[in-house]
Amino acid sequence: MAVETISEHRCFGGVQGFYRHASGEIGLPMKFGVFVPPQAAHGPVPVLFYLAGLTCTEETFAIKAGAQRLAAELGLMLVSPDTSPRDTGIEGASAAWDFGHGAGFYLDATESPWSAHFRMESWITRELRELVLARFPARGDRVGLFGHSMGGHGALTLALRNPGLYQSVSAFAPIAAPTQCPWGEKAFGGYLGADRAAWASHDATELVKGGSKAPPLLIDQGLADNFLAAQLHPHLFEAACAAAGQPLTLRRHEGYDHGYYFIASFIDDHLRHHAQTLCA
Amino acid sequence: MAVETISEHRCFGGVQGFYRHASGEIGLPMKFGVFVPPQAAHGPVPVLFYLAGLTCTEETFAIKAGAQRLAAELGLMLVSPDTSPRDTGIEGASAAWDFGHGAGFYLDATESPWSAHFRMESWITRELRELVLARFPARGDRVGLFGHSMGGHGALTLALRNPGLYQSVSAFAPIAAPTQCPWGEKAFGGYLGADRAAWASHDATELVKGGSKAPPLLIDQGLADNFLAAQLHPHLFEAACAAAGQPLTLRRHEGYDHGYYFIASFIDDHLRHHAQTLCA
Repeated sequence: MAVETISEHRCFGGVQGFYRHASGEIGLPMKFGVFVPPQAAHGPVPVLFYLAGLTCTEETFAIKAGAQRLAAELGLMLVSPDTSPRDTGIEGASAAWDFGHGAGFYLDATESPWSAHFRMESWITRELRELVLARFPARGDRVGLFGHSMGGHGALTLALRNPGLYQSVSAFAPIAAPTQCPWGEKAFGGYLGADRAAWASHDATELVKGGSKAPPLLIDQGLADNFLAAQLHPHLFEAACAAAGQPLTLRRHEGYDHGYYFIASFIDDHLRHHAQTLCA
Repeated sequence: MAVETISEHRCFGGVQGFYRHASGEIGLPMKFGVFVPPQAAHGPVPVLFYLAGLTCTEETFAIKAGAQRLAAELGLMLVSPDTSPRDTGIEGASAAWDFGHGAGFYLDATESPWSAHFRMESWITRELRELVLARFPARGDRVGLFGHSMGGHGALTLALRNPGLYQSVSAFAPIAAPTQCPWGEKAFGGYLGADRAAWASHDATELVKGGSKAPPLLIDQGLADNFLAAQLHPHLFEAACAAAGQPLTLRRHEGYDHGYYFIASFIDDHLRHHAQTLCA
C-alpha cells in the first residue's frame, strides 16, 4: 500500500501532512490528511479519525478546526479523509453539492453507477484504517472517530455498525436521523435505492432503536444552525438513546451556527472526550 | 460611515464577523473581518489589527490562524482587513499574484493608474481604524498591529512610519527589506515608480537605519520557509535593529514553512506579546 506525500508542514512541533494512495476499495486515488503529534517520535500514539461534511475535502478540518494545538499536547494523531471518491467520470456526479462528489455519506453504495466507486464505509473502516496503522505510528487498539454534519452521521453510524472498532466517538451537528430528512432521503435513495428497508441500517437513530451500541457519545449542536430544523433532528437520536440506554451527552449551544467557527469553539472539548478513553 | 454586515458567527463566546464599507480613501467598497471577544459586552477592549500576505483576503486569518480562542480568553478584539482594493477595473490588476489585487503592500501608491485606489496605508492607519473605533467597542488608546509576509512588512513599516499609533507590534516571516528582494522591487516599482529614493521610507530595514522607532518587536521566522532566502531577509532587519538599538526578539524555528500551520503554531505567543502591553 504505497502512500504518496502531497505536502507536509511542521505544526505545533508535529507534522500536518496530506497524502494520496491508490485505493482498492474505491478503485481510484484517494486523499487524506494526517497530523502526527510530537509524542509519536517516542512510539505509537492513539489515533482519531475525523469525517467531514458535505462539500469538504481532506484539507478542511486541518485548516479550519484548530485541532492540532491540543492534539499536540495530548499526543493524539488526527486523520482527515476526503469526503467521497473524486473524478469518477460518473455523469452528474459533480452536479449537486449534496450528492455525488464531496457527498459520499460514509456508506457503500449498492446502486449502479455509484456502487463501483462509492465505497466509503469500507475505505474508512478497513482500507484507510489499516493503511494508517501500517504507515504511521498509530495504535490500533486506541482508535477514535468523530465528524461534522454528514460526517457526524458517518461517525455515529460507522461506530454503531462496527462494534468494538472505535473506542471513543463524538459528533458536531450530525445528520442524526437521515431517513427522515431531505439530505438523507436524496443520498440513501441514490446510493442504496428506493427500498427504504435498506436505509435503516445507515441511520443512527434507527440503529440505536434496533439495539446497536456505541461508546458513550458526545454531541454538540448549535441552536442558530440553519440546518437544525429540517436536516439534523438530534432530538430523535436523543430520544432513541434515552429509550435504549445508550449513554449520550447532547449539548445545545445558543447562538452557534453550522460552520467551523462553531466547531473550533468546541473542538478542545471533543479532543478531551476522546483522550479520556484513548489516552487513559 | 455605514458598515454593511456580510456575516456574523458566534465563536468562542464572542462573534467573528465580516463587514463591508464604502471606503473614501480607496474609492471602492472594502471588506474586513472583526472578532469581538466576550469581554466587549462589558466595555471597550484593546484591538489588534492583522495584515495578511499576498493573495489573502479578510477571511484568511479568521479561518486559518486559530487566534480567536486565546483572544477570547485575553479579551482582545481582532481586525483583519482585505489585502488590497478589489474590482478596480485597472487593466492587468488581476494578472499576477504578487502585484495588484490581493497585493496592496500597505502603502499609498503614487504612480498612475494605481494611485487612484491603492491607498492601503491611509485606509488601514486612518479610515478603517477610525471606523472600527466608532463602530465596535474598541479602545483607541490600546491598538496593536501584526501581520504575515507582505503583511509583516505592512506591520513593521506602518508602525515605524506612524510613531505612537500602535502600542504593540509583531510579525510572522515579514518581507523585512523589500527594496532588496524581487517582491518588493516589483511592488515598489509599480506603485511608487522607478525612483528608488521614494522606496526607502516603505522599507522596514531602511526606516530603522534612518532612526525610526517602534515598540519592542517580536518576529517569528520558519527556517524551512521557501521564501526566506530570496524574499524575506530578516537578517538585514536584525542587523539594522541591533545597530539602531531597536528592541527586537527574532526567533528562528527549525522545520517550519511560510504557511498558516506555522502561524497557528505560534499565534498564541504573538497574542500574549500584544496583551502584555495592550491588556496591561
